[in-house]
Amino acid sequence: MSKNKIRAEIVEKLRKLGEQLEKEIQKNKDPEISMPIRTLSNAYFDDNSKLIRLGDKVQTRNFFNVGQARKFMQTALIAAQIKELLEQDKPSISTRQLYYILKRTIDGLKENTFEEQSESDPIIEDLEVSIDALREDLGLEPTPDGVFSGPIKYTDLKTGDEIDCSKMGTAGAAIPANTEPGVVKFGKCTAKYVLVVEKFAVWSILNQLKYWKTNNCIIITGKGQAGRSTRRLVARLNKELKLPVYVFADFDPYGYYIYSVYKQGSINLAFFSEKAGCPEAKYIGLKHDDVKQFKIPKSNFIRLTDQDLKRLKEIKNYEWFKKKEWQEEIKKATDFGYKIESDALVSKTIEFMADTYLPKVIKDKDWLD
Amino acid sequence: MSKNKIRAEIVEKLRKLGEQLEKEIQKNKDPEISMPIRTLSNAYFDDNSKLIRLGDKVQTRNFFNVGQARKFMQTALIAAQIKELLEQDKPSISTRQLYYILKRTIDGLKENTFEEQSESDPIIEDLEVSIDALREDLGLEPTPDGVFSGPIKYTDLKTGDEIDCSKMGTAGAAIPANTEPGVVKFGKCTAKYVLVVEKFAVWSILNQLKYWKTNNCIIITGKGQAGRSTRRLVARLNKELKLPVYVFADFDPYGYYIYSVYKQGSINLAFFSEKAGCPEAKYIGLKHDDVKQFKIPKSNFIRLTDQDLKRLKEIKNYEWFKKKEWQEEIKKATDFGYKIESDALVSKTIEFMADTYLPKVIKDKDWLD
Repeated sequence: MSKNKIRAEIVEKLRKLGEQLEKEIQKNKDPEISMPIRTLSNAYFDDNSKLIRLGDKVQTRNFFNVGQARKFMQTALIAAQIKELLEQDKPSISTRQLYYILKRTIDGLKENTFEEQSESDPIIEDLEVSIDALREDLGLEPTPDGVFSGPIKYTDLKTGDEIDCSKMGTAGAAIPANTEPGVVKFGKCTAKYVLVVEKFAVWSILNQLKYWKTNNCIIITGKGQAGRSTRRLVARLNKELKLPVYVFADFDPYGYYIYSVYKQGSINLAFFSEKAGCPEAKYIGLKHDDVKQFKIPKSNFIRLTDQDLKRLKEIKNYEWFKKKEWQEEIKKATDFGYKIESDALVSKTIEFMADTYLPKVIKDKDWLD
Repeated sequence: MSKNKIRAEIVEKLRKLGEQLEKEIQKNKDPEISMPIRTLSNAYFDDNSKLIRLGDKVQTRNFFNVGQARKFMQTALIAAQIKELLEQDKPSISTRQLYYILKRTIDGLKENTFEEQSESDPIIEDLEVSIDALREDLGLEPTPDGVFSGPIKYTDLKTGDEIDCSKMGTAGAAIPANTEPGVVKFGKCTAKYVLVVEKFAVWSILNQLKYWKTNNCIIITGKGQAGRSTRRLVARLNKELKLPVYVFADFDPYGYYIYSVYKQGSINLAFFSEKAGCPEAKYIGLKHDDVKQFKIPKSNFIRLTDQDLKRLKEIKNYEWFKKKEWQEEIKKATDFGYKIESDALVSKTIEFMADTYLPKVIKDKDWLD
């Protein structure tokens, strides 16, 4: 779907929302906006799709309700502003910038439209959910923080530039703030899989060694906990180009969790998770059994802290970690008493992860699902 | 200078260091490494170069000194390891990865070479200073965090890729971890100046509007407080390509400080600051007088916190802010009692900063020096 068509569809949805409100007002009815509830109580792990999803509980927001009138006004303001920006094909902005555009003292009152960004952000999320569109498609973009490289080209539909991700030097290609189909159009891709790497410094070694070339894959890092645009990029490579996704993270509860966010998303962004998850993603390491198999030296072990142990316990109870293999892994990690960073593999040789570890675990399907 | 030549020079310096130690040992002398002191007491603002520099106080580190023996051993280990990695032309690694490579239990002792990364990091800095080379040239690279675009090409000497920064889409070109001459070789550049933008979301609007094309410049963001590779890139564009540098930041003490770090560096990285500063950089805003001149609406003002006021006081006392124009600016900001984010300019129009504000302040030389 073209950039303009996506935009036109969203403008139409927003127009309909406004039209509905207008009709209600003209009929002297109480104008009402209804939308799925975004609270944790309405988020769940869907065992069929293996994704964290939003349930079907709905809330309504009315103008003639003292507790809801301010939020109603704010929702209408945000919807109208977004519609205007999209119609005029303005540059995308941040949610903070949208807040600045809309914050003003209401004529004739001493009240401001918004006092803090913490008032506008949840309403943007409400709107995303109610018209079933990601904020990126509404022209609201986060700060991205990842890089990738490999045998794939994409066209940036906003600028028309074609980016060849196999020619981006040691820096790699910066992941755009918006990786939706309206901006990123995949071109030729000969990669066979996507390797998601938790840490930049690990990704950088793989990139310098051109692991992506030798192994015909795309290597991506979100620099720790991944942002929206990195997650959506990985999900689109998975869904649209049918590339398997392997996640390479630290052997610690945070590594497990980062993997799970790429795979099935997170509870507090359940609406986004439906669209950004990769339910088939595999966790290729570091895993408990790698310690013995690859003789990781004891000097690289770091003792688990109380915080780590607490986090392991929490993760063990997440529904999406209830599979037998994960319960065993978490138990082994807890009993082991140490964590190990993926960086530590350099203590074998700098090339070890690229030449031995990664090709072997991927070939042997030595992963957790 | 070619990548290989730079590497060969550093290997030679490290070889000489080792040779000197070997000679002392063979003469039954106490082996000794001397290096400039890196503590704050030896850092100063040099009014001639307008840079924060390291003074000439020197320390020695001896093997036959109970208090220094461990550090001496660690210094020798790090120097030897770096020499080996450079000689073998290995991929660059992070300082954490170097720590993992070197951490081990010493044969015959119960002691480890290093216990924590906090032991190896300062020694890497010592080594940088003592052989007068940046860690990037030693093959130790930080995680970069910036993007840039504009009419400039560069060749990545590690991969041979030529990057055209005018064709990098909405993402811009990722700033490499290492922007030293051994990696980044500037090619054709028709830009007339460098615009450093504090915030990604502001940079993103300018990039989407192709401000760099209309105004024939390079736009760079370090996403807040800039990292090493962003600072060095800006400094090299300034020194080698003779491009003036303009910094566009928030109207608050952090905006002022970010500017000052690009300009004259910071006290705690004085050795790096000598090489990464741009003493001619100008602060183009937001400034106190912009509020009136550009009629920034009151709804965008944010009251200064106690923390902000404290920081303003500190900054006022920094030697490099002692110029009359800066003392006045800081006084006005303090009296004004509010701060304003650069983002707030979108409340005029989204294009306002690109079409009006920036071209005007640059044309009028309406800046602080």
